[in-house]
Amino acid sequence: MQALDLAQAFTLIEPGPVVLVTTHDGGQDNIMTISWTMVMDFKPLFAITTGAWNHSFAALRKHRECVLAIPTVDLLDQVVGIGTCSGADTNKLARCELTPVPARLVRPPLIQQCLANIECRVVDFIDRHDIVVLEGVAAYLDTERQERRMLHAVGDGTFIVDGRRLDRRKMMAAKLPPGV
Amino acid sequence: MQALDLAQAFTLIEPGPVVLVTTHDGGQDNIMTISWTMVMDFKPLFAITTGAWNHSFAALRKHRECVLAIPTVDLLDQVVGIGTCSGADTNKLARCELTPVPARLVRPPLIQQCLANIECRVVDFIDRHDIVVLEGVAAYLDTERQERRMLHAVGDGTFIVDGRRLDRRKMMAAKLPPGV
Repeated sequence: MQALDLAQAFTLIEPGPVVLVTTHDGGQDNIMTISWTMVMDFKPLFAITTGAWNHSFAALRKHRECVLAIPTVDLLDQVVGIGTCSGADTNKLARCELTPVPARLVRPPLIQQCLANIECRVVDFIDRHDIVVLEGVAAYLDTERQERRMLHAVGDGTFIVDGRRLDRRKMMAAKLPPGV
Repeated sequence: MQALDLAQAFTLIEPGPVVLVTTHDGGQDNIMTISWTMVMDFKPLFAITTGAWNHSFAALRKHRECVLAIPTVDLLDQVVGIGTCSGADTNKLARCELTPVPARLVRPPLIQQCLANIECRVVDFIDRHDIVVLEGVAAYLDTERQERRMLHAVGDGTFIVDGRRLDRRKMMAAKLPPGV
């Protein structure tokens, strides 16, 4: 995994992929699957919708740190497996054969098998809507990975895989933020 | 365009597509392109990040209604065109040859050329983060449309097109909301 310029980190979340979120509760790492995410700023700032119904939320609330890890299509069954069991009674990382790697600025781990990882600190909780606002503080991309197609949850048990990429950089030049 | 069960409307936004947002300011329709969106609840509830830097925001703030219209890959140049000019000095719907269709419960129009449309009412403004919370009140899907591949903005001027769809309904059965 190579360091990625923070100015580019929002481009990992903007396409709307399924994301794994790692947390650490002081004793143990945990991981959850989430697709309710949103870019809020190029800084980068992100929103995720989660609450007490997720076991990971208590650790996020208390320690105010997480890692957003972006899986690719070859990890689909791990993604679904993580989403269908609870960290309350399972060591999900070990069960899904995902390898935690120490992060640089936060305690929750990066996930070695993922295409990209973003270390995040919580900057706000919007309790009335179960929104957690995160600021990315370090980012990484596995530039040697062959499989780079991300997954998009439909919400009905099916997942759309990234297809081809179309380039409109020239048309959009005036609107792009610096550094991307 | 056929009516779509509101219980399924969140599945249009959950995969993270580029969305067109129509508003009406009392005199004129406007439209903007947005990819900073998030599902917040199956009801459905959605968040979008927008603010005074978008011309459409004043109408959204005042009239508290909009339509989320979901374009497909054949509309890419319209999507980019909408995103690179301002409703302050352009009738963007006409310029992009998009056809407004009267909505049922809100004043902003549906977009005929889009795969799907969701009529929304604003339920909250989270001013400190420029988040607008929307509740979907009616939804439509063009079931006769051949091209159904949605677009995902990367944020660097490129767009990822939907590829194949993978089915994990059986593994996820216990976690799916009713009605999808």
